[in-house]
Amino acid sequence: MKPTHIEHIGIAVTNLEEATKYYEEVLGLECYAVEEVADQKVKTAFFMVGETKIELLESTSADGPIGKFIEKKGAGIHHIAFAMDNVTDALKEAGEKGVRLIDKTPRSGAEGLKIGFLHPKSTLGVLTEFCGKK
Amino acid sequence: MKPTHIEHIGIAVTNLEEATKYYEEVLGLECYAVEEVADQKVKTAFFMVGETKIELLESTSADGPIGKFIEKKGAGIHHIAFAMDNVTDALKEAGEKGVRLIDKTPRSGAEGLKIGFLHPKSTLGVLTEFCGKK
Repeated sequence: MKPTHIEHIGIAVTNLEEATKYYEEVLGLECYAVEEVADQKVKTAFFMVGETKIELLESTSADGPIGKFIEKKGAGIHHIAFAMDNVTDALKEAGEKGVRLIDKTPRSGAEGLKIGFLHPKSTLGVLTEFCGKK
Repeated sequence: MKPTHIEHIGIAVTNLEEATKYYEEVLGLECYAVEEVADQKVKTAFFMVGETKIELLESTSADGPIGKFIEKKGAGIHHIAFAMDNVTDALKEAGEKGVRLIDKTPRSGAEGLKIGFLHPKSTLGVLTEFCGKK
């Protein structure tokens, strides 16, 4: 496999509105979409920086993955998503190389893209996502 | 200010050699440089993914910033660096907008680039770097 670029960086925030204000007013970025991903119990806001998205994630439920992450580690960088030409093949290859997979096959993520996660215990503490293309 | 792209993502690792092996053999990236930054008490390895670098950081001393980070939070994503046309101006503007600065003026970072850090207490938990261009 060979990632083509960093598709996005996921950042856990406690308040999406306040965080959007910071990314817009301080860093000069522009929020181009807000989306709720019910499956992940998150509300997300997207900003483009070059070819990479910043994806802010606010939990819609304390027992969702972002709610648990913030409780344990505090708000901050949550995961990195690598853009892959073929997420199915990339997950399969990672599994064959001994990586523990959260998703053995792709599922549908934000923006309707195919996604799959690798477990941070197999990726040196970095929650890693593979993300398809439109 | 307006970041042009994500210059790099800094990842704290406990063992640079083992981590390099993972990024090369599993993710298919290529380490193009290894560098020691004495000032930061780190040894770094660089990988290009599209326009963004992955910067792996191994502490050369337990009392360095990466050593302390790993002790507190474990290995994982450490910081995001935004590429800025002018780091001096960007730091000044962030300071004027109320952001607490670790570096009020730029200093020299890895690869000889001008860099400056914003404090995570002012950036919603994300250790944020501004990074100049060659």
